[in-house]
Amino acid sequence: MVPLIILVKSGGEESLPGWREDFRAVDPRLDVRWWDDPTVAAEDVHYVLVWDPEHGRLKNYPNLRVIFSSAAGVDNIVGDPEWPAHLPLVRMGGTETARRMAEFVSWCCLSLLRGARRMALGQEQAHWDHFQTSSTAPERRVGIMGMGNLGAATARMLGAIGFPVSGWSRSRKEVPGVRSFAGAEEMDAFLQETDILVCLLPSTPETVGIINRDLLNRMPRGAQVVNVGRGSHLVMDDLLAALDDGQIDSAVLDVFEREPLPDNHPLWRHPKITVTPHLASLASRRERVRYVAEAIASHEGGGTLPNLFDAKRGY
Amino acid sequence: MVPLIILVKSGGEESLPGWREDFRAVDPRLDVRWWDDPTVAAEDVHYVLVWDPEHGRLKNYPNLRVIFSSAAGVDNIVGDPEWPAHLPLVRMGGTETARRMAEFVSWCCLSLLRGARRMALGQEQAHWDHFQTSSTAPERRVGIMGMGNLGAATARMLGAIGFPVSGWSRSRKEVPGVRSFAGAEEMDAFLQETDILVCLLPSTPETVGIINRDLLNRMPRGAQVVNVGRGSHLVMDDLLAALDDGQIDSAVLDVFEREPLPDNHPLWRHPKITVTPHLASLASRRERVRYVAEAIASHEGGGTLPNLFDAKRGY
Repeated sequence: MVPLIILVKSGGEESLPGWREDFRAVDPRLDVRWWDDPTVAAEDVHYVLVWDPEHGRLKNYPNLRVIFSSAAGVDNIVGDPEWPAHLPLVRMGGTETARRMAEFVSWCCLSLLRGARRMALGQEQAHWDHFQTSSTAPERRVGIMGMGNLGAATARMLGAIGFPVSGWSRSRKEVPGVRSFAGAEEMDAFLQETDILVCLLPSTPETVGIINRDLLNRMPRGAQVVNVGRGSHLVMDDLLAALDDGQIDSAVLDVFEREPLPDNHPLWRHPKITVTPHLASLASRRERVRYVAEAIASHEGGGTLPNLFDAKRGY
Repeated sequence: MVPLIILVKSGGEESLPGWREDFRAVDPRLDVRWWDDPTVAAEDVHYVLVWDPEHGRLKNYPNLRVIFSSAAGVDNIVGDPEWPAHLPLVRMGGTETARRMAEFVSWCCLSLLRGARRMALGQEQAHWDHFQTSSTAPERRVGIMGMGNLGAATARMLGAIGFPVSGWSRSRKEVPGVRSFAGAEEMDAFLQETDILVCLLPSTPETVGIINRDLLNRMPRGAQVVNVGRGSHLVMDDLLAALDDGQIDSAVLDVFEREPLPDNHPLWRHPKITVTPHLASLASRRERVRYVAEAIASHEGGGTLPNLFDAKRGY
């Protein structure tokens, strides 16, 4: 049995023993090493599992077969101008990743529906602030931008809770029970009937700054925003202005232009924004290991790879 | 058209114009007056809509036909030793009340699943505290104590999100997709497979202090608690001890022995307890008005009343 070396850079070097143990349990052929392990020769590396590799590093492995991203987004990998773009790049997927995203976005939408930020401020101030929110889920229409596997799973769960759900994507995606909008020409119709906007778009040059003042103004007054895509999707100053003047009522933000969001950044204190530290959809290590090990087994056997990066689409 | 006088004590006297307007829209016969209106003769009062009437007051209306509780619980009414127990007492019901409870409890369970209290503390401290929760909804079994119309609606929504759901009640209640437990003899089996306990019991002498150290110890280690019943259901010192020693991981509490929970009460600062100010299921005023007006119309026409208090059951 020839060992296959996989370099890991995800979660800090202290997580290596956990990765080793989980990989050993599913495929003993895999020799799991840390990204900076000085004892590994570059030509012996067959696979990498990374989230934010230093630019210029990935090109140095002449026998690399597949690059695995340890999360759904690959922008930190393809942002390396020298990344070996001829190799297959696999985005993290699997049903647990999609379920976690759906659960998190459901929590976000229910939080916005019930005024959870106000409740949290009441608790922070140790003050009984009884108030009533006016709407139930069937009265708040959720619009999801980005209807890939995460968006579709999220739409299904929100629909099961009772939210009316529509989806917008570059090309039309049909999900049962979800009103489908596609392309720039249907964006206006989509926004006009969206009370809670959920951003689940991939990070591409075309989606940078897509949530800007113009887009926010096309939604109904008092609309709400959930960003679980990328910080770069949102023009923060535009959101803050729309919150100030009431066009937007409140928001949940899980992603930021700069992460970690610096401690004591003013955003943390905003009374209408719930800030969460980029934890929407990360699957458990064991689930990610299973996904990667299955993909490697498939690839070694001449089979296909899931969730491949497509340079033309940009994700 | 003979006017029917209904006295209202719910939400403070400043809410009276809103009650009047909403009642006028659905039944112009109803003359809505504030509870302490000195111009109303006691013998002219036909209906009351109250939440916490002063003891001894309800017996003074010789022509009172029905007492309406402005919320699902009636303990503040039947706690009056002199309340006119020969009269029909109607608990607040209706589909919106049940939906609001289901949405709130779903938010509570997702909050516990994803560590929302820890997220809120991170935001409060303006600190990026990235962490990962281990479970998805299908891995956390929710057990609901109290399977009336609120419990059944809640069970259905939690099931749609993906939580395995079981229900316990005094007498067996069958809800599709929900494992049913009944009576004291099945309590142990119910608790042993409950990771998140939701209390939706009515307030009766038998349910006082039901969530105590003994009950908490019969759940799996690291279980979680949601109390949206009454503060009296929970022995607070027992919960605090169970949180301290890890038997219970965390809790969401919406109800308290003394409400409002006093400002600066130590409970507000507990790192494992989310405190919310008793706002789980209050329906909108318009919905409650519709419910009461329909019941009055039915009663005046010789028809039945919904959700009647049953002295034998105690709720």
